[in-house]
Amino acid sequence: MIYFRSDYSLGAHPKVMQALMDTNMEHTDGYAEDRFSYETADMIREMIGKPDAHVHFMVGGTPTNTITIAAALRPYEGVISPATGHIYVHETGSVEANGHRVFAAPTEDGKLTPEAIEKVLLHHEDEHTVIPKMAYITHPTENGGVYTKAELTALSECCKKHGLYLYMDGARLGTALTWPGNDLSLKDIANLVDAFYIGGTKIGALFGEALIIMNDNMNDHFRYMVKRACALLAKGRLIAIQLKALLEGGEDSLYYELSRHENELAIKLSKGVVEKGYELWIPHQTNQVFVIVDNDKIKELEKDFFFYTWCPYDETRSVIRLVISWGSTEEDVDAILAAL
Amino acid sequence: MIYFRSDYSLGAHPKVMQALMDTNMEHTDGYAEDRFSYETADMIREMIGKPDAHVHFMVGGTPTNTITIAAALRPYEGVISPATGHIYVHETGSVEANGHRVFAAPTEDGKLTPEAIEKVLLHHEDEHTVIPKMAYITHPTENGGVYTKAELTALSECCKKHGLYLYMDGARLGTALTWPGNDLSLKDIANLVDAFYIGGTKIGALFGEALIIMNDNMNDHFRYMVKRACALLAKGRLIAIQLKALLEGGEDSLYYELSRHENELAIKLSKGVVEKGYELWIPHQTNQVFVIVDNDKIKELEKDFFFYTWCPYDETRSVIRLVISWGSTEEDVDAILAAL
Amino acid sequence: MIYFRSDYSLGAHPKVMQALMDTNMEHTDGYAEDRFSYETADMIREMIGKPDAHVHFMVGGTPTNTITIAAALRPYEGVISPATGHIYVHETGSVEANGHRVFAAPTEDGKLTPEAIEKVLLHHEDEHTVIPKMAYITHPTENGGVYTKAELTALSECCKKHGLYLYMDGARLGTALTWPGNDLSLKDIANLVDAFYIGGTKIGALFGEALIIMNDNMNDHFRYMVKRACALLAKGRLIAIQLKALLEGGEDSLYYELSRHENELAIKLSKGVVEKGYELWIPHQTNQVFVIVDNDKIKELEKDFFFYTWCPYDETRSVIRLVISWGSTEEDVDAILAAL
Amino acid sequence: MIYFRSDYSLGAHPKVMQALMDTNMEHTDGYAEDRFSYETADMIREMIGKPDAHVHFMVGGTPTNTITIAAALRPYEGVISPATGHIYVHETGSVEANGHRVFAAPTEDGKLTPEAIEKVLLHHEDEHTVIPKMAYITHPTENGGVYTKAELTALSECCKKHGLYLYMDGARLGTALTWPGNDLSLKDIANLVDAFYIGGTKIGALFGEALIIMNDNMNDHFRYMVKRACALLAKGRLIAIQLKALLEGGEDSLYYELSRHENELAIKLSKGVVEKGYELWIPHQTNQVFVIVDNDKIKELEKDFFFYTWCPYDETRSVIRLVISWGSTEEDVDAILAAL
Repeated sequence: MIYFRSDYSLGAHPKVMQALMDTNMEHTDGYAEDRFSYETADMIREMIGKPDAHVHFMVGGTPTNTITIAAALRPYEGVISPATGHIYVHETGSVEANGHRVFAAPTEDGKLTPEAIEKVLLHHEDEHTVIPKMAYITHPTENGGVYTKAELTALSECCKKHGLYLYMDGARLGTALTWPGNDLSLKDIANLVDAFYIGGTKIGALFGEALIIMNDNMNDHFRYMVKRACALLAKGRLIAIQLKALLEGGEDSLYYELSRHENELAIKLSKGVVEKGYELWIPHQTNQVFVIVDNDKIKELEKDFFFYTWCPYDETRSVIRLVISWGSTEEDVDAILAAL
Repeated sequence: MIYFRSDYSLGAHPKVMQALMDTNMEHTDGYAEDRFSYETADMIREMIGKPDAHVHFMVGGTPTNTITIAAALRPYEGVISPATGHIYVHETGSVEANGHRVFAAPTEDGKLTPEAIEKVLLHHEDEHTVIPKMAYITHPTENGGVYTKAELTALSECCKKHGLYLYMDGARLGTALTWPGNDLSLKDIANLVDAFYIGGTKIGALFGEALIIMNDNMNDHFRYMVKRACALLAKGRLIAIQLKALLEGGEDSLYYELSRHENELAIKLSKGVVEKGYELWIPHQTNQVFVIVDNDKIKELEKDFFFYTWCPYDETRSVIRLVISWGSTEEDVDAILAAL
Repeated sequence: MIYFRSDYSLGAHPKVMQALMDTNMEHTDGYAEDRFSYETADMIREMIGKPDAHVHFMVGGTPTNTITIAAALRPYEGVISPATGHIYVHETGSVEANGHRVFAAPTEDGKLTPEAIEKVLLHHEDEHTVIPKMAYITHPTENGGVYTKAELTALSECCKKHGLYLYMDGARLGTALTWPGNDLSLKDIANLVDAFYIGGTKIGALFGEALIIMNDNMNDHFRYMVKRACALLAKGRLIAIQLKALLEGGEDSLYYELSRHENELAIKLSKGVVEKGYELWIPHQTNQVFVIVDNDKIKELEKDFFFYTWCPYDETRSVIRLVISWGSTEEDVDAILAAL
Repeated sequence: MIYFRSDYSLGAHPKVMQALMDTNMEHTDGYAEDRFSYETADMIREMIGKPDAHVHFMVGGTPTNTITIAAALRPYEGVISPATGHIYVHETGSVEANGHRVFAAPTEDGKLTPEAIEKVLLHHEDEHTVIPKMAYITHPTENGGVYTKAELTALSECCKKHGLYLYMDGARLGTALTWPGNDLSLKDIANLVDAFYIGGTKIGALFGEALIIMNDNMNDHFRYMVKRACALLAKGRLIAIQLKALLEGGEDSLYYELSRHENELAIKLSKGVVEKGYELWIPHQTNQVFVIVDNDKIKELEKDFFFYTWCPYDETRSVIRLVISWGSTEEDVDAILAAL
């Protein structure tokens, strides 16, 4: 069985595992109060050019999103997300579990726009309404789309104008950073958003995300919020150790290398399916390829390949999602192209 | 100043006040455990033809909606509402404050449809998603629209089919029940929904709503839920006394009489504005009339009349909302028609 | 049946009812944005000598307590209450429903002390613990006890020293203010606490409490918190109208007069039972008298009198609570003394 | 620096790391829907003799406790814990964050008793009170105490009698199971409680606990609750792989071996300190030793040893906590005994 199922079907990249092995028998204090966590936080602050940023090592994407939102908002405030955003679609209401509304803004391509934000703001002006106080985006989007510098700048200015926090979910950030033509560096992002995270779970780690908060208001008693949300890992250093192994070296790091690898294979795959006469559901960017396939053909493919059938397309065809992970190989791509 | 501002700009109807005066010096136990509450609950059960229904006397619409939803849903479940629904637009996230998502279903006229429900259900099938478990409607809708028996039956069947509770917010229920051509009786409603409330605050009471729950699953430890939500009134009898004064007599009751009065004046008003050449924003039903008026004219009207400017219509015109309350008079309507 | 059951077995004092009748047919805007609310708030600010205080008109004690606490605390913060405090014992976890812990501090007589506060503070110093951030007291206590100026000053200083808010639940405040020997005026209280409320429900109103917040930090977006908690009354003026009728005139007001009446009858009752050879469970203050009575005698009393049997005392005796309300009469007291 | 700080100052036992390495490059589906998770769950069900038990692989102790409680309780219900229990003392209000009260029952030695439970139950009988619905214990207790079979049986019967769930936090369960004289087997525990967890984080794993639910009522939509609480690990298999490495072999497993090692060293340590004339704060059981030490001596020890100063004892002495972890060595113990 060949996996195009998700970004997390393997363990960690061998170099990440090696880093865990190398440090395994060193005693440290718990809860990310250890030299690995401090050093990695320093490294990240330097990478993004923000010496005063707050860095928190989080177990996964959902706690990172949920706690960042819950720590920043007052009880009567909500967060605007594209209707396709992870916090609206795939986190079982964890934002609402903390008492906050997610405003699902209509979106054509998975991106949030200043227009969509302002439409939500329109009708929220007195104590009978929830106050939208944050905009949430994923970069790349859930469908793989890469924001341009112009787009992110426009969002940033819109949020500043209206007093909203801008928060970026970077579960697959590496694939955006290394996408051909991308013009948004880590430093740009750090300048344009109030907080974002660099995702490790989906690119090479066993688990772990580096949450980076530039806006001090969002960081008040943050560790209390993490513990209260059951998300303060006892052996917190494990996340820092993995992220150091991934991120050390900046654009030459393992993280960028794995991300480039994902993008290259995904480009090969998307070109290949188009050459074979298939139609893409949406224009391809980063490591997810959405292909329209006959339902009969899908059944046949499922014998040898493991992937998600994303949604029905018409009466005889559906959309399948093929995810390239850091562990995917040229042979995997050749195999599915041959089978298609 | 003449008020077309809301349904609650006066105190209570004099007969309601009289009922409070008549019973004022009688001692009873608190928290709706008194003869007035028991008798009024019995009267309501008989009115709706449901001898086993649970009746709770609630202070206002928002606690009624929020607590009914919170009592019925498990933490990972949500409620589907038209995007214009009161729980989505005007309750400051009180449903989310209890941890539940409100799914805002797109709607053309304020009504929820089986199609809209099924569209929400489509993508909620595993533990990464919120489970829609209830459909919420207002009758009449926020804009005054009256569901037909066919429409409510279709909703009811759709909810049964998909295992959803159907709950009706009846803040202005009397105006729907007495709308010319309405084919939905209280007994029909009680047969078609799992729970609904008969609103007193907006039709003649100082405050108070009768929540009626037919579905036992929604009633489990309900009074605990009310108290926990800070909504168990110490002198609970006050609500029952008012509702008895309003509802006694069924279709000949004060409640029906006031509602008919509101509808009649609203019809006079809506006909009048059309005759004067104004355009209605939406087809008129029940006690709210939405009129498109020049912005200059609105400013002029505001000198003598108190009303909401609902939303901009185009560059020079806006929509105003004129509400007929039980205390509105023919003279009030004549006055604004003359001024328009 | 003669009632010694609670403070809320009647409607409102006739003068309060008259005030509601007198204003009933005047149109105003809703949600306490009306002249009655503004005027009554001004009157209260003057009474307490705090021209900048924030005044909110609340429906009942539980919403007042819960929302004041929820508005002031961050999610990881809690409130210290005597173990007998209303928020711990009789509000069905409504504080916890908003995510906050109630620290139940042991208490001998229902009063909170600086020592008890500091004992709770002892073990709360890092992100693994809830931060105690507020002290909650009732004045008089649940058992009727009256804080002295020295006691309240000590609490106030303790709270200031440790960065805690001090909040006073004044459900029965009038009976403390008019208790013989009391040395705490409304102005003293306003100087010593961050927020408190003057309770109407238990002293003469149909319902309604005046919440007064001196500390601006506790008032941020307070009305949003009220609406989100389902507690913003549509016809908000009703509370202000009642409280004006009660409080107008300061120490000569109806509120003080009714409170004095309650205390006088309670003193007569407590003296009477002691003269008849009964033992009081706790020293008597304000309008509640706790008497130790033979279980057989209790059964006999229950034929003609309605009261709470508070708790077992020993194998043959129990404690009964006799509450004097504003509507209790000399004849009521004579009757139960005769029956005892 | 020699560590007696906590149970989690190292990475994982080398055999656990090896298991992660061995399986690292195998593709599986995410979220614990993989063969490792299924197989390990089967193994655990067999170990405890409960073929129908539900097994969930959780990241850490706090999410396990919090989610188990939140999934089992209705909003107005609470959980009884010894006042020293982890959920009351060291989880930053995560239970309250889900809306539930923790009743802190006074305890002499960290154990909960039927008497303490019944004292809490006494005053909770109507809708004005939180309903206690679960009893929470840790085994061993926070101070290391081991419940006997008689004690756990009495708790179990008390809970059944009163309709409470009984839940056991087994963060350090291995040290109780292997304590000399312990008479409670895993199978006994599974028979006496409704749910418990076998803790890996503190005994040999990088992280991970096996939650085992015998009572079906507590398992309803449990995975939704986990995801909603941000605690569903993407690479869920990591927990099962580690726990299999630890638990395989039952009483001959690595988990039992490491636990025995901890107990043996702790006994050596506690005997040693007593022989040196020190006083133990509480009688010693399992892997934590609490010693009363002069404050000056503590300062001296801190140069070479890392441990917690637990609390002041008197004016010149404090209590220190010395934790033996799976990685502690005879040499570590000899060193601190020499230094004391």
